[in-house]
Amino acid sequence: MTAARAGNGTGNRDVRGRGFPSRVALSAMEGWIDAAAVPLPPRAVALADLAPALAEGAVLAEPVTAPGDWPPADRAARDGVAVASSDTLGAGSYNPVPLPGAVPVAAGEPMPPGTDAVLPVECIQADGPFIEALGSAAPGEGVEGRGEGVRAGTVLLPAGHRLRPQDLGLFAALGIAALPIGARPRVRIVLAGGPRSGPETLGAMLSALVARDGGVVELVGPLPADRAGLAAAYAAPGADLLISAGRTGVGEDDVAPLALADAGELALHGVALRPGDSAALGMAGTVPALLLPGEPMACWTAYELLAGRAVRRLAGRDSALPHPAVVAVTARKLVSEIGCTELYRVRRTVEGMVEPAASPHKPGLAGAVQADGFVLIPAESEGVPVGATVTLRCFDGTSL
Amino acid sequence: MTAARAGNGTGNRDVRGRGFPSRVALSAMEGWIDAAAVPLPPRAVALADLAPALAEGAVLAEPVTAPGDWPPADRAARDGVAVASSDTLGAGSYNPVPLPGAVPVAAGEPMPPGTDAVLPVECIQADGPFIEALGSAAPGEGVEGRGEGVRAGTVLLPAGHRLRPQDLGLFAALGIAALPIGARPRVRIVLAGGPRSGPETLGAMLSALVARDGGVVELVGPLPADRAGLAAAYAAPGADLLISAGRTGVGEDDVAPLALADAGELALHGVALRPGDSAALGMAGTVPALLLPGEPMACWTAYELLAGRAVRRLAGRDSALPHPAVVAVTARKLVSEIGCTELYRVRRTVEGMVEPAASPHKPGLAGAVQADGFVLIPAESEGVPVGATVTLRCFDGTSL
Repeated sequence: MTAARAGNGTGNRDVRGRGFPSRVALSAMEGWIDAAAVPLPPRAVALADLAPALAEGAVLAEPVTAPGDWPPADRAARDGVAVASSDTLGAGSYNPVPLPGAVPVAAGEPMPPGTDAVLPVECIQADGPFIEALGSAAPGEGVEGRGEGVRAGTVLLPAGHRLRPQDLGLFAALGIAALPIGARPRVRIVLAGGPRSGPETLGAMLSALVARDGGVVELVGPLPADRAGLAAAYAAPGADLLISAGRTGVGEDDVAPLALADAGELALHGVALRPGDSAALGMAGTVPALLLPGEPMACWTAYELLAGRAVRRLAGRDSALPHPAVVAVTARKLVSEIGCTELYRVRRTVEGMVEPAASPHKPGLAGAVQADGFVLIPAESEGVPVGATVTLRCFDGTSL
Repeated sequence: MTAARAGNGTGNRDVRGRGFPSRVALSAMEGWIDAAAVPLPPRAVALADLAPALAEGAVLAEPVTAPGDWPPADRAARDGVAVASSDTLGAGSYNPVPLPGAVPVAAGEPMPPGTDAVLPVECIQADGPFIEALGSAAPGEGVEGRGEGVRAGTVLLPAGHRLRPQDLGLFAALGIAALPIGARPRVRIVLAGGPRSGPETLGAMLSALVARDGGVVELVGPLPADRAGLAAAYAAPGADLLISAGRTGVGEDDVAPLALADAGELALHGVALRPGDSAALGMAGTVPALLLPGEPMACWTAYELLAGRAVRRLAGRDSALPHPAVVAVTARKLVSEIGCTELYRVRRTVEGMVEPAASPHKPGLAGAVQADGFVLIPAESEGVPVGATVTLRCFDGTSL
């Protein structure tokens, strides 16, 4: 918690009715999160239970190494008859060659002793047990050799790899019965009440975001804007991470930061991020705590850039944004204030360029719902002109 | 079921020990699936239950239209004091102007009668109830006007849209309590036994694939390669779709197609697709049935191109492949047989080009596990040269 303590003093200040004297850089909050939120111990999951875990985005906690050769012995790669290839020399449809030693095999069966090739059914003629070759086979033809798919000891997948269906098929073939998978952090979401379309409407969205990033949600509230009540909800045991939404601004009832100070420590309050600038962080008892604004678009942005990072870290995942990133060219100028990271919701034009769907100043989620993704303008930039190359982070991975 | 019946006669043939006289085009099987697998009735899901549905890839069954304006009335867009803008004319830090009618407001609160702007806290000076303006406000400044986010009647999202977290936030703000979502088809997966790394190892992989495409899995087996036993498992009630893996080839114990004929109808058997050419389809009683090869890579391929299409259709989703598709350039030649759709597992090179990770002929999932995605060579093509533009379908959406 060194980073958390280092932040102390900048945060324990009441901004209500006064405004923020300054806002910390986004990178300072990221650094605090990376120090405070460390991966939880992985869980061992049986192969049969991994299929549902894939929907949760499960990642490998350790590299996977092949425990043995695959296939473990030479075997038929197709249905047919196993032969000694030398017995088929010169065989053809006008010169059938008897195969007294041929053995019918199905694809996947081990090769019988003394055989080194599989003739497909189209190349044989059978009359009961009497089999003739209508073509020749080279040594090894129709055979999958021991270790041809995987050699024992090969590192198949690295730690942090997000599991895919075919991975489970290979694990099963190799006899891998269970694997260490990133933890599912217990994330308490506290809705700190406000007017409608403020925090009390954010439960479903935040639950979906936390689930996407690997957390298990405990949803609390909406609670009234009461300092003692919020502090008690923040400090209650049973969570690995606290996320609170609402009551982070400069109004009289914006008591969430004060409640966090009461429940542990308010380390940083106010970030040079638009939307989302009233976000705060600190410790609720012994767990990291992120306070998100109650305005829905600011809440979404502060989740994606701050709280989600903490969830992903605890879950043993890559802390970077999970959205598919592609390079795109701007069809319109995107202006931004120097010193502030700004998030533009953008649409793709028919030409495949990006244009703003909503400015960073525009509240509400309608702009995010009608956008194809977003572009971040870093703090050190005053924006980008028309025709500039930017990184588009896509909301939907299937329509790039 | 017209298409299913039309296929009759081409399929009800025993290929065991003889080989396939011909194989149908992939497009013929796709056409059969599109006719036989029609979307199931949607389900109404409450907003609070939508967060877990997002992990399952839930899609809208109908377009969503805004039921009212958002915001429903003019409201404060920031914390501060609501004022009549005309009262602030000429105010500045050297010329404080008393504001007897000013009312403190929090962001999101409705504007009090007679006010049309919100001065931020940095622009006021308060001494108890006595408030002075230190700056002026234009009419509408700091105010979000009625309907500025969303106008009543606007179509927000189309049918078939895959829901994202921010969509739930907007629905909540608009007071949308429940939505019709694509059905979750009940998919029976029957493992038709075989040697290890044949069908009996495929349960976890197929379960993960079906779940990804929106189905609920019932896993049966592994069952022995017994025609009557398989036919009984295929025909049992309670499923919307049957997927069987294994025993589709030309070996003596490849009885799955015969069992399907017994359980209903074998419509098509054998497809010009590599890997996966022994796939079959038909009807198990009244439900569509897909028989996949037991060789794991052939099984995966036939699932993705055939069975998955049926699952997605029943679930009301886009029937196209769900993998993120990007344009890429070949670093190596990809050769393919005319008349056969071939699937190359490919890797991205450091230059961002694609090169084969495994040929369509190579069995086993190791090649798919170590690939970044796949490229399909259509039946009418004999392949593509070095430097050709192809569609790369990515296994992982986050590293494009």
